[in-house]
Amino acid sequence: MLINCAAYCDGRKLADIEIGAIHDYLQRPDCFVWVALQDASPDELRVLQAQLELPELAVEDALHGHQRPKVEEYGDCLFTVLHLLHHEPAQIEVGELAVFTGPRFVLSVRNRSEQRFLGVRARSEREPELLRFGPGYVLYALMDAVVDRYFPLVEQLEDELEQIEADIFGDRLPGRATVERLYLLKRRTTVLKQAAAPLLHDIGRLYGGRVPGQVAAVQDYVRDVADHLTRINASIDGLRDTIATAIQVNLSLVTIDDGAVTKRLAAYAAIFGVWTALAGLWGMNFEFMPELGWRYGYLFALGLITAACAALFIRFRRIGWL
Amino acid sequence: MLINCAAYCDGRKLADIEIGAIHDYLQRPDCFVWVALQDASPDELRVLQAQLELPELAVEDALHGHQRPKVEEYGDCLFTVLHLLHHEPAQIEVGELAVFTGPRFVLSVRNRSEQRFLGVRARSEREPELLRFGPGYVLYALMDAVVDRYFPLVEQLEDELEQIEADIFGDRLPGRATVERLYLLKRRTTVLKQAAAPLLHDIGRLYGGRVPGQVAAVQDYVRDVADHLTRINASIDGLRDTIATAIQVNLSLVTIDDGAVTKRLAAYAAIFGVWTALAGLWGMNFEFMPELGWRYGYLFALGLITAACAALFIRFRRIGWL
Amino acid sequence: MLINCAAYCDGRKLADIEIGAIHDYLQRPDCFVWVALQDASPDELRVLQAQLELPELAVEDALHGHQRPKVEEYGDCLFTVLHLLHHEPAQIEVGELAVFTGPRFVLSVRNRSEQRFLGVRARSEREPELLRFGPGYVLYALMDAVVDRYFPLVEQLEDELEQIEADIFGDRLPGRATVERLYLLKRRTTVLKQAAAPLLHDIGRLYGGRVPGQVAAVQDYVRDVADHLTRINASIDGLRDTIATAIQVNLSLVTIDDGAVTKRLAAYAAIFGVWTALAGLWGMNFEFMPELGWRYGYLFALGLITAACAALFIRFRRIGWL
Amino acid sequence: MLINCAAYCDGRKLADIEIGAIHDYLQRPDCFVWVALQDASPDELRVLQAQLELPELAVEDALHGHQRPKVEEYGDCLFTVLHLLHHEPAQIEVGELAVFTGPRFVLSVRNRSEQRFLGVRARSEREPELLRFGPGYVLYALMDAVVDRYFPLVEQLEDELEQIEADIFGDRLPGRATVERLYLLKRRTTVLKQAAAPLLHDIGRLYGGRVPGQVAAVQDYVRDVADHLTRINASIDGLRDTIATAIQVNLSLVTIDDGAVTKRLAAYAAIFGVWTALAGLWGMNFEFMPELGWRYGYLFALGLITAACAALFIRFRRIGWL
Amino acid sequence: MLINCAAYCDGRKLADIEIGAIHDYLQRPDCFVWVALQDASPDELRVLQAQLELPELAVEDALHGHQRPKVEEYGDCLFTVLHLLHHEPAQIEVGELAVFTGPRFVLSVRNRSEQRFLGVRARSEREPELLRFGPGYVLYALMDAVVDRYFPLVEQLEDELEQIEADIFGDRLPGRATVERLYLLKRRTTVLKQAAAPLLHDIGRLYGGRVPGQVAAVQDYVRDVADHLTRINASIDGLRDTIATAIQVNLSLVTIDDGAVTKRLAAYAAIFGVWTALAGLWGMNFEFMPELGWRYGYLFALGLITAACAALFIRFRRIGWL
Repeated sequence: MLINCAAYCDGRKLADIEIGAIHDYLQRPDCFVWVALQDASPDELRVLQAQLELPELAVEDALHGHQRPKVEEYGDCLFTVLHLLHHEPAQIEVGELAVFTGPRFVLSVRNRSEQRFLGVRARSEREPELLRFGPGYVLYALMDAVVDRYFPLVEQLEDELEQIEADIFGDRLPGRATVERLYLLKRRTTVLKQAAAPLLHDIGRLYGGRVPGQVAAVQDYVRDVADHLTRINASIDGLRDTIATAIQVNLSLVTIDDGAVTKRLAAYAAIFGVWTALAGLWGMNFEFMPELGWRYGYLFALGLITAACAALFIRFRRIGWL
Repeated sequence: MLINCAAYCDGRKLADIEIGAIHDYLQRPDCFVWVALQDASPDELRVLQAQLELPELAVEDALHGHQRPKVEEYGDCLFTVLHLLHHEPAQIEVGELAVFTGPRFVLSVRNRSEQRFLGVRARSEREPELLRFGPGYVLYALMDAVVDRYFPLVEQLEDELEQIEADIFGDRLPGRATVERLYLLKRRTTVLKQAAAPLLHDIGRLYGGRVPGQVAAVQDYVRDVADHLTRINASIDGLRDTIATAIQVNLSLVTIDDGAVTKRLAAYAAIFGVWTALAGLWGMNFEFMPELGWRYGYLFALGLITAACAALFIRFRRIGWL
Repeated sequence: MLINCAAYCDGRKLADIEIGAIHDYLQRPDCFVWVALQDASPDELRVLQAQLELPELAVEDALHGHQRPKVEEYGDCLFTVLHLLHHEPAQIEVGELAVFTGPRFVLSVRNRSEQRFLGVRARSEREPELLRFGPGYVLYALMDAVVDRYFPLVEQLEDELEQIEADIFGDRLPGRATVERLYLLKRRTTVLKQAAAPLLHDIGRLYGGRVPGQVAAVQDYVRDVADHLTRINASIDGLRDTIATAIQVNLSLVTIDDGAVTKRLAAYAAIFGVWTALAGLWGMNFEFMPELGWRYGYLFALGLITAACAALFIRFRRIGWL
Repeated sequence: MLINCAAYCDGRKLADIEIGAIHDYLQRPDCFVWVALQDASPDELRVLQAQLELPELAVEDALHGHQRPKVEEYGDCLFTVLHLLHHEPAQIEVGELAVFTGPRFVLSVRNRSEQRFLGVRARSEREPELLRFGPGYVLYALMDAVVDRYFPLVEQLEDELEQIEADIFGDRLPGRATVERLYLLKRRTTVLKQAAAPLLHDIGRLYGGRVPGQVAAVQDYVRDVADHLTRINASIDGLRDTIATAIQVNLSLVTIDDGAVTKRLAAYAAIFGVWTALAGLWGMNFEFMPELGWRYGYLFALGLITAACAALFIRFRRIGWL
Repeated sequence: MLINCAAYCDGRKLADIEIGAIHDYLQRPDCFVWVALQDASPDELRVLQAQLELPELAVEDALHGHQRPKVEEYGDCLFTVLHLLHHEPAQIEVGELAVFTGPRFVLSVRNRSEQRFLGVRARSEREPELLRFGPGYVLYALMDAVVDRYFPLVEQLEDELEQIEADIFGDRLPGRATVERLYLLKRRTTVLKQAAAPLLHDIGRLYGGRVPGQVAAVQDYVRDVADHLTRINASIDGLRDTIATAIQVNLSLVTIDDGAVTKRLAAYAAIFGVWTALAGLWGMNFEFMPELGWRYGYLFALGLITAACAALFIRFRRIGWL
């Protein structure tokens, strides 16, 4: 589905144009065309491939979807894939933004995601002195917008970890739900990592050393995106490491709690064991059991039982079993 | 066993030829020969070695089998080994495809696998503009076919992990079977990793920097295979990491469940302990136990026992032991 | 908030100057300006950006805060971010010091931290032979001051680990509190690592190979800071590794203790079980139980029970269950 | 102890020679001398050092033994140390083969091992077209022979792991013996890894880039050894990873089994608790307990007890505790 | 404290000299001065700094102590820090040896350690053909002496691990002491690793590629030290890995033992439960319990109880619970 197709010259928008007219604008000096598609059909993409001379393998990737984040050079066309992440409760949905960046055109294809980038176009059009850098600047602006949306996600996951921590070290012992939440949190960090880490690796080709012509003028900006990705990556790694520790620590706490219960159990067993055993003695039916005939035999028995149980109780209290 | 032997010129098939005639076709300009063997006998391979001047060490590797995936250069002959994976329930069978790629020939030798590559030949013959690139393109097409068959395998393993997850966090506590499934899943990811990771490493020699002549023209295609391998590799790593977490988390859940049972045990021990102990008291045979003679002594005893047990029951309910 | 703004010439302070006068001093040969801000407002920073021609992206980073530690080159302006760490009990607060280092100026912006650097300025002014190296020396002096403050922090964490160790291997079994302390300790090492590790990586650009002009003369000093960072990093890694081992070892000890309690429980169960069972026998109401009529039947019963229990007791003592 | 000392010219054996005559043969063009020692005494080695001008530090290493596997260049003499592994039950014995490779000589010194290399010499002498490559070929042949003997060892360890797996997932719960076997298996993989991994690293100097003159002509062969080492290394890494998982999984199974026993224990406690408690009720000696006088009171009691126990039994069956 | 100060010329000792005379000897061709200090006071070091023109930052490091092992170049002065390790029971004490190596002097400063290096000087003086290499050779000799003292330490730790293993897999179950020993062993490997690993990294600058002039002639010797360090490092890594496995395995064994005890407990509970329950039945006071009047009722009861308990006992034996 076509969302937008416009021609820009010297940083300013010339006009919304027809797809068929793209070829004309590509000839004009200092001009470039910016096209945005959503969930493009093969036909739409093939038409644009013909107009913009897009590389075959990249077009297939864009159609096929489910690519890893990457930056690839095909001759003078840069092909970039970015992951668009949407945080459902307990799960992260992954869409894609594929961007073809030629010397005179930018084509973005958004797949399986409702995240819109109209704001990027609007902001770019308000800053013609930057848009003048051409397709490379647009590529930067899109990457920047995508990556900036990773930050709140990282923060949500960090917040969630803090809530789980509060559960773990709180008053109630953590149960199955806590473990499952830790597990699902870990899985989501994996999705996030698979969005950020490969991109961080590939983006290194766009600044510093030999860089493709389109982005030569915007290297500082691209480095800024790389810096954000580095920060996100470090946060994710910290998060993953902490989750792993939390899983271990939680197991320790559960085991400690088990131990405490086993101790109480042992204490009950001892106290009631003594009581029942003593009572059992005087429940025997021997004919010659002198104390049975004593006047205060019963009181004596009760006293003895009480004393024995009390002694055990105090002992277990002191060693912390009860 | 010879499967196929044909000569190609300028991207089009000339003829199916005899092995003995290979040498003639190797002389013709713009021609190359494509030979496919399955579970080749030493004799068959020696005949072809003589015809194609294959490097000795590579031929030994192909005969011996059980190689790791690799790309090796012997003079102007590229020797490539790929793993063919077949997913049996709970196990992955590993076969091999060894490919010799010379300037004018391609020889593939398939060992211990029923996976066929006739489709690759058919498709290549339908696209003479690509087959024109020569033996390097055939090598690419074979690698692409092999690697594409890894994707459904990764997906099967991911599906299986999701089923195990459903078991782990489901209503019934996971038992021995779940742990065994996790273990076998881990083992299979190792097989998959050993197929993909070394190949990803070695394939880097076939694009980008200085590359062997045969593949110089198909570098973009080879890079596409490398991209697929990177994706597969990342999926496997994610899978392995998640399995490791699942094993830990499962242990935590089992321990939590143990703790819950221990608590119920302790609660039973306390309740029945009180009951039996009290009953034991009045079962004693002392002569002077005034309450034994009371009109409502029995009711009083029953009431006391019931009250004590009920109090304990309520207490244990409240702290979550019952 | 402006803290300080002074001009230096040939290593000696000329005067405290107005922000508006900075531009004049930048023209003088051998002079540089050193400005220090705290929690700068956007307006303050924008004024200085105009005076010093600071790079836009770096200024945005300084305003935005929450950057990772880094060293970035923007043309001939070096932009450095350092983490200022403040050790609250059980938590480390993170502030930032952003430093812009141009050929003729240094601007430091301190955010969310009460750590002051007046001492650095005072010491530098007392050593004009070093301050003569210019802005690069000031950058070094600030980095050195920040990094030196990491050492006591590392030591505090190491001390805390030793206290926890004393708890773990002490007389009382470690409980929930010990595990929580280990967890919080681990978290703080993560904060420390995220302050030191990225800086160590980036600081490598400031000595050895091709280095920015400002710091060319102070490379040995910068290498000294890098050496300190390496030392801190190694300490943190050792600490983290030891904490991980401590968590495992603590779990082992808890499990060992559980096992000891379970053994005592089994021993109680056996001893009282035998006692109660024997007493129960003679509590039966059969008419023909000859021993009930014996003269010393009761003594015999008591003796038998005592003997059985004593035998068990001795046995359990010997195998270490009691 | 001298095992062998022979001179070769143009790939063919000239004669078995005396140590004292070595120097003469070193002068002849296209000739080289191949000497083999076993558990050499310092004197023997010093004599050869004088004859062959061996580097001092390497000779000390060969005398001292207990070196790590390595390849070192001393001027135009290559010094190689290889580990000879012998699989005792539950342990791997480590011997060493030190090889000095000069432009005109090969000297191998075997220490603490009964593995013989006469077969290597015999095979080499049968292939003069290869032996013509000189000392470098002999070095290759020895390395190849040593490394090929690692394969059956890896397979033995893999077989042993499979047996342990069968134990772990078999009918009987794995006990102490299984854990000890896993531990000893892990230790042996460490020995194997320390034999293969450093050699794989160092062998890279003998092919590909700038290589010592002796091995320049046999690079393809050396690369073949490196390929074998890579394969062995990958197998070992897979093995170690699987052992680690097996240890974890085994712990999970033991914990699951514990849980099952605890459940049966709790179930017993409940069933016998109810029974004993009810029987205890009617064992009380109150005077007014009407049901004691009922005609079918006893049957009623038996019925009630049976019913209660059966209900519990059924309940525990259903939730899987019995 | 000054230990030694001597001048050497052409490999031979000229004389013990005064500190004040050092400057004179530095002028003579082919001469160098070798000074050794122990726990030097700032004053002593400042005097030598003036004489030898030592770099300021290095002198501060030497005074300050607690440096990581390292090799740093300051102009034509090499500054080396080595850790001196002393094995106290259950702990490793760390001292330091700082070595300044100039073109014409060597100055060693030993801190917090009683390890002496007089032997190194004596041996060097006996080998003038080596000492002729100058200060670089002395540096090598000191490094070699320090590193060689790491070997017995590694062996002690390995021996200790073997003792702990014997405990773990021995007859008695490992208790708290075993776990604590494993933990302390792990900590000591960390100290050892922090002594060896950074040195191994830095020493790479002293051989192979571009090396400082002082050590150019002794590169083979330095490489030999590096080789020793590599060996030590590999041993430590193996040790650490094995300790980690031992901790896990120990936990498994403890858990297995717990399980065995829980089974015995469950078996006792069942056997005594049946006995007590049956005896309780006939202890009830119903009037109409025909078996109570039987002639052999009591024997019948005893027989039934014995049979039930024996059946259970045999059953538990068979399944391994008793």
